[in-house]
Amino acid sequence: MNADKVPDIIIGRLPVYLRALQRMAEKGMSTTSSQELSAHVGISAAQIRKDISQFGEFGKQGTGYSILFLADRLREILKVNRMWDVAVVGAGELGHALSRYQGFTDRGFCVVMLFDNDPFKIGRNVGEFVVEDSANMVERIRGANIKIVMLTVPAAAAQAVADKLIQAGVKAILNYAPISLNVPDTIHVQHIDPAIHLQRMTYYLT
Amino acid sequence: MNADKVPDIIIGRLPVYLRALQRMAEKGMSTTSSQELSAHVGISAAQIRKDISQFGEFGKQGTGYSILFLADRLREILKVNRMWDVAVVGAGELGHALSRYQGFTDRGFCVVMLFDNDPFKIGRNVGEFVVEDSANMVERIRGANIKIVMLTVPAAAAQAVADKLIQAGVKAILNYAPISLNVPDTIHVQHIDPAIHLQRMTYYLT
Repeated sequence: MNADKVPDIIIGRLPVYLRALQRMAEKGMSTTSSQELSAHVGISAAQIRKDISQFGEFGKQGTGYSILFLADRLREILKVNRMWDVAVVGAGELGHALSRYQGFTDRGFCVVMLFDNDPFKIGRNVGEFVVEDSANMVERIRGANIKIVMLTVPAAAAQAVADKLIQAGVKAILNYAPISLNVPDTIHVQHIDPAIHLQRMTYYLT
Repeated sequence: MNADKVPDIIIGRLPVYLRALQRMAEKGMSTTSSQELSAHVGISAAQIRKDISQFGEFGKQGTGYSILFLADRLREILKVNRMWDVAVVGAGELGHALSRYQGFTDRGFCVVMLFDNDPFKIGRNVGEFVVEDSANMVERIRGANIKIVMLTVPAAAAQAVADKLIQAGVKAILNYAPISLNVPDTIHVQHIDPAIHLQRMTYYLT
């Protein structure tokens, strides 16, 4: 296994396979094939076989993949065979929605803190959380050894908050602010911006 | 200009360039370079020049790109030099947040309808909207000639709703449900699933 050399584009597809396998398992299925997975994820069967084979031999000729086994291995590869504590920074509507979203826990993530700098939000209850003052963010995140943050602050504030998060030891930022973040190479950033996705589709509309 | 042949991976980067150019324009900047853009978007200057040159000659040796001109051309290419009406289907917390998000209008999109099938949500006010009964969704969307939907229903309902949306004439779906949709080749789907992005980053964490 030479996982260190696996291209990021392949790593990016593994969570998609894992999600499909989890849904198959929930339906009570026990085995699947690259063809069947292909129909679920919209990626060719050949690509799926090639991607998965980067990490070893999982499928058997004729019988396909054991869903539970392959899902377990993908969780191990993606390091979600454990639970990661996550902080949400920005308690606007999106921050609320993410804090209360029920779909993270069976995929390796647990939101444990929610921060904002708005005096009218600090101290308020959001689901199980009390919105904490972002003045204490660095200390709290460092103290809890949190490595992952979902960032839902306004664009104008995002870079300054990201700098503080990195100072607090955060290694991975899911950035919902509509701005690219400048971070050191050791920090992982993924962006979610619905307008970017919408514009990618309008190109094809007539 | 042979835009029809431009690979989708390039199309996917154009909205990122446009977003950076819009921010530069807001800051009062008038020209930029591929190097400067590169620092903003985290894509190499050579790649940016190559991507943009697919659509014609925009930069001048030595003076770089006119921000307003390039942004206008990108809007034209991406077909967001007009406003697209968008419907949100699913009036949960995320549907609420998207319906009230202020960041769409200056990027070509205007949310105009919000649907749910929950009797306790139908008729309620969400920002400027009243949640409409999804029983009327096909008729309403077809009547308003809406081509773009943001889908925030639970995973178990997503495919059935997508089928109805396609029947209503929708051509582009931004799918927030954590499930891959099966749609005809003529329909464009983009997925947003925060757990997918988080798992792509945990792979690299130690």
